[in-house]
Amino acid sequence: MGQENTDCLGRLIKELCRLPGVGARSAERIALYLLDAPEEEVLSLAQIIREIKTAVRHCEVCDGLSEAELCSICSDSSRDRSLICVVELPKDVMRIETTGAYKGLYHVLGGHIAPLDGVDPDKLNVDSLLARARDEQVKEVIIATNPTIEGDGTALHICSLLDTINVKVTKLSRGLASGAAIEFSNKDTIAEAITGRQLFG
Amino acid sequence: MGQENTDCLGRLIKELCRLPGVGARSAERIALYLLDAPEEEVLSLAQIIREIKTAVRHCEVCDGLSEAELCSICSDSSRDRSLICVVELPKDVMRIETTGAYKGLYHVLGGHIAPLDGVDPDKLNVDSLLARARDEQVKEVIIATNPTIEGDGTALHICSLLDTINVKVTKLSRGLASGAAIEFSNKDTIAEAITGRQLFG
Repeated sequence: MGQENTDCLGRLIKELCRLPGVGARSAERIALYLLDAPEEEVLSLAQIIREIKTAVRHCEVCDGLSEAELCSICSDSSRDRSLICVVELPKDVMRIETTGAYKGLYHVLGGHIAPLDGVDPDKLNVDSLLARARDEQVKEVIIATNPTIEGDGTALHICSLLDTINVKVTKLSRGLASGAAIEFSNKDTIAEAITGRQLFG
Repeated sequence: MGQENTDCLGRLIKELCRLPGVGARSAERIALYLLDAPEEEVLSLAQIIREIKTAVRHCEVCDGLSEAELCSICSDSSRDRSLICVVELPKDVMRIETTGAYKGLYHVLGGHIAPLDGVDPDKLNVDSLLARARDEQVKEVIIATNPTIEGDGTALHICSLLDTINVKVTKLSRGLASGAAIEFSNKDTIAEAITGRQLFG
């Protein structure tokens, strides 16, 4: 359509294009869907997008996403307070929580050390982690940074700082991804699966 | 994250999941992007989504999308008023406009005849098309319904109605898609490309 009359639609498509994973064609598809969708649904989406910036902040303890001072995990008395799982970003917490395999607490670093991008160790929430690790309740810190060069570097740095504190430090195991084929796994993964091989049964 | 504290984020992810082409993972990615995006950008997106339902309506002449009584195409005096291109949906207008190859007017049917889905011919904007085609200015009606069974059926129906009116009726050509390989084209397409073959040069 032309520029002036469908300005609103054009602007919506342009705004949608900025979202991650949304290209020009999907933006158009979403815009046309919103045009046809029930008014209630569309207004509700607009409202929740407005709210998200003010409603969601960071937990004062773990720096994860929260809508109160303490996030739902830190304030949940049924969680195991002797375990702290250290992750890079809030989305890692969300992903680990979907597994249901972990019942301890988290600590969100806010990224990984990347000097070239201006992320020095002091930009990450490391001091608050050390303070938490000094708590007698805490028995184990699980380092769950990403299995990348930056993630591994960050893990090493944190591990060296935790060395002075009387706490067990562990990391997530490496190996073949569940459901993956050896044929299509990368060399490093296969090497790590061999190095870290475990007794059968 | 838990249910109560990050309720807002969870609701946003749920609302985003309803959009076409947005699955659970991309909804999460978009939600986290919005959390980090500049407030101005997020509020602007919310605002434009709010506006879209009230701002955009249908053109009184062609039934295409418009923000005024007449859409930008119908009200553009530089368009060729002797040509009307009949399409199924507003998105077809948008797609044809991106080519820049057409300078005439449009007529949006609002879909195709599909009796099983309750779309009878009288549910489509056919009467208004016939009224427009009777205008002396109009010399040619180009039927540009989709090359599907329903689109072709709708085209036949409209063609038979236009038969009584003194206007040239044409349809879009069929054949190999630009950039496609014969090897991967379907049988019907190849058959149509052979039947509709043209003189070289």
